[in-house]
Amino acid sequence: IKFHNLLTLNVCEKLFPIVSEIIERANYTNEIQVNDVEMYASFCIYGQLGIILNTDISIKEKSSRIKAFFRDLFRL
Amino acid sequence: IKFHNLLTLNVCEKLFPIVSEIIERANYTNEIQVNDVEMYASFCIYGQLGIILNTDISIKEKSSRIKAFFRDLFRL
Repeated sequence: IKFHNLLTLNVCEKLFPIVSEIIERANYTNEIQVNDVEMYASFCIYGQLGIILNTDISIKEKSSRIKAFFRDLFRL
Repeated sequence: IKFHNLLTLNVCEKLFPIVSEIIERANYTNEIQVNDVEMYASFCIYGQLGIILNTDISIKEKSSRIKAFFRDLFRL
């Protein structure tokens, strides 16, 4: 389980430039208004860890609650 | 560095009930309005990892940018 956790942190790191670019592009097209892209990317990626590592919630429920959080966060 | 990362994940886990309670109490006193306390607690705690593990930013700058993000997130 500890090895799995390290894997997860590595995946987060790899996702960072990808998610940053998605946020930047959506910012540019005015779909969202975000002042600190780096901060939002960190919270979007790493913030999911507490949920993903929680084995009490089904994958389907995780997915829908994470999506709802993002709608709140970006005021969509 | 990998051991340090595991330590960090463990600290996050320990913070979960504490931060959940803070959010619940602020919700109760109407300081904030949050529908999914568990989700917000996860994003508040684990979301900081990407910033904290980034060694290019000074601790002072990390702190002020994380605070600004929280003000945005909770609409304060």
